Amino acid sequence: MLSAAYVGDRTMQVTDHDTSPPAPGQVQVAVAFTGICGTDLHILHGSMDKRVTMPATIGHEMSGTVAALGEGVTGWRVGDPVTVMPLEWDGTCPACQAGNEHICQNLVFVGIDSPGSLQGRWNVAADLLVALPDGLPLRDAALVEPVAVAVHDVRRAGLVAGQRAVIFGGGPIGALIALVARHEGADVLLAEPDANRRRTVEDLGIRAIDPVAEDLEAAVETWTGGAGADVVFEVSGAPAAVLAATQVAKVRGTLVIVAIHPDPRPVNLQRVFWRELHVVGARVYQRTDFERAVELLADGVIPADRIITKVVGIGEVADAFASLESGQEMKVLVDCQAEAAAAGSEGVA
Amino acid sequence: MLSAAYVGDRTMQVTDHDTSPPAPGQVQVAVAFTGICGTDLHILHGSMDKRVTMPATIGHEMSGTVAALGEGVTGWRVGDPVTVMPLEWDGTCPACQAGNEHICQNLVFVGIDSPGSLQGRWNVAADLLVALPDGLPLRDAALVEPVAVAVHDVRRAGLVAGQRAVIFGGGPIGALIALVARHEGADVLLAEPDANRRRTVEDLGIRAIDPVAEDLEAAVETWTGGAGADVVFEVSGAPAAVLAATQVAKVRGTLVIVAIHPDPRPVNLQRVFWRELHVVGARVYQRTDFERAVELLADGVIPADRIITKVVGIGEVADAFASLESGQEMKVLVDCQAEAAAAGSEGVA
Repeated sequence: MLSAAYVGDRTMQVTDHDTSPPAPGQVQVAVAFTGICGTDLHILHGSMDKRVTMPATIGHEMSGTVAALGEGVTGWRVGDPVTVMPLEWDGTCPACQAGNEHICQNLVFVGIDSPGSLQGRWNVAADLLVALPDGLPLRDAALVEPVAVAVHDVRRAGLVAGQRAVIFGGGPIGALIALVARHEGADVLLAEPDANRRRTVEDLGIRAIDPVAEDLEAAVETWTGGAGADVVFEVSGAPAAVLAATQVAKVRGTLVIVAIHPDPRPVNLQRVFWRELHVVGARVYQRTDFERAVELLADGVIPADRIITKVVGIGEVADAFASLESGQEMKVLVDCQAEAAAAGSEGVA
Repeated sequence: MLSAAYVGDRTMQVTDHDTSPPAPGQVQVAVAFTGICGTDLHILHGSMDKRVTMPATIGHEMSGTVAALGEGVTGWRVGDPVTVMPLEWDGTCPACQAGNEHICQNLVFVGIDSPGSLQGRWNVAADLLVALPDGLPLRDAALVEPVAVAVHDVRRAGLVAGQRAVIFGGGPIGALIALVARHEGADVLLAEPDANRRRTVEDLGIRAIDPVAEDLEAAVETWTGGAGADVVFEVSGAPAAVLAATQVAKVRGTLVIVAIHPDPRPVNLQRVFWRELHVVGARVYQRTDFERAVELLADGVIPADRIITKVVGIGEVADAFASLESGQEMKVLVDCQAEAAAAGSEGVA
């Protein structure tokens, strides 16, 4: 089978090799599609060389079917459509003991800290599987993971119907947060300086504004009758957005930190104090978020066709990364199926 | 009567003048004691010249007795011991409409935005009075306002018995937060680089640590079994404390922003994200906090004698500010009683 691995020097290497059978407690998944996300791009750029072990078969946004069961695995049949919630916790650290396993202090993020889904056959712990309904195309199901991120972010915000939410950042996660928040009954406004991204977001029926060309603060004042937004999502990672975010939140409003900010950012703590804001971090997801994401895709709430703008074969994985890097695509998938079949024909699993 | 006003140029001017009678809806209070706080010092230093109207009779931490009732005022008798909750809200802004009157978008902070209690006789809206129990000395009752701040901060933290709290800053508010949190059943640790302040705090039975000389993060790790603190209060206003605060909070821990940070501060948002922290602003107080503060002082939970380290007459108000500025005193009060009596003898009110 083919697998794609980051080998350093901004290079993804595709190799053809045999597959080992699933270990006890594991399931072998025939990977259908793997989405490429911003973190994968960070890995390619070398920003996470201290964390990954090369060659690193990355990929954690995926869909597929059960291909084989390891010893002791029950509850799954070969052919079942599945996705994987790529989190492995130790169950013993203080965070786990307090019920926050998803942000275990020793979390293994599968596809970063251990091998991921950019391969035809993937052996993963059976505990991580999440069932997919038969009616959901596997192509669309590759979005479950990023949709689960958005569901978690909206849940962390405590957002309720009728509230107004501002989203900084119009990439895939920003767009998905807007869609999920809107489905929860919120009125949403997205701030994004890139015209291409704004167009894509507007095509989803989301109001988007250029925060560089327009006075966002004034727009939010008008929109909210002088109150400010109930909820603000910082998804851009931009220092300017962090400063703007506290300006557009209402008294006791909530600001959710979704983006990765590698360096400490100037935050207007005076505003946090003055308006008694709540700033909350939102990282990955819990199983309830993953299951909800499956529902939202199956119900058509998330228009997968509009989010997925390109699909390439695993042999062209470098092209997938280049497309994402160009900023012209919203979500790029890698199709691993043909290769999986080829690997299968070589007698694996 | 004598009154003390900020007149610019780092100067407090004491003048002797007549008192006007209370307007309808007002009560005239014979001020007993007025505490000087950090905000008053900021005013003296000229940092708030755009906000105050000179000559500015400041002062908002006080105790006294009812001296006269304006037209239409009921429920109070001359001689009743009282303090004043120095907040006037408009009742109509979005924050007020949402029940957050205490941080009204057009809040008038009495003693900053309007005349305060550094005078023998003070006419204030009857709505702002809070009754004091007979057994509580008026000297101690001058601490109700700062204790109410601490009560509000602890309440905003959602702190519950058995939790561990780290407090950055060992001034009066930091010390009061430590005392209130301890009374609520928390284990507390206070970080303060100044040796004098650490000694005062330790005299209150609070464990204090020098975050410059010692490894605070390691100390908290050991203390909390590797979890981190449940709650962290940032009361210092120091940029280094803001960065340290996110390091010592547990997964999903709460960081309360109590201090005023005039400029945007570098915040480790990566840590906020990674540990799904809650950062909450806490400003002033609500009536429930004020009433609780009265109880805590009356019950002796707050040892007022240890917090109040100096009392001067209103004629020596400059000395009160100088003492506070020196960093040698915890809480300095101005005694307005003799002058009030003198003013009274001049036939006022």
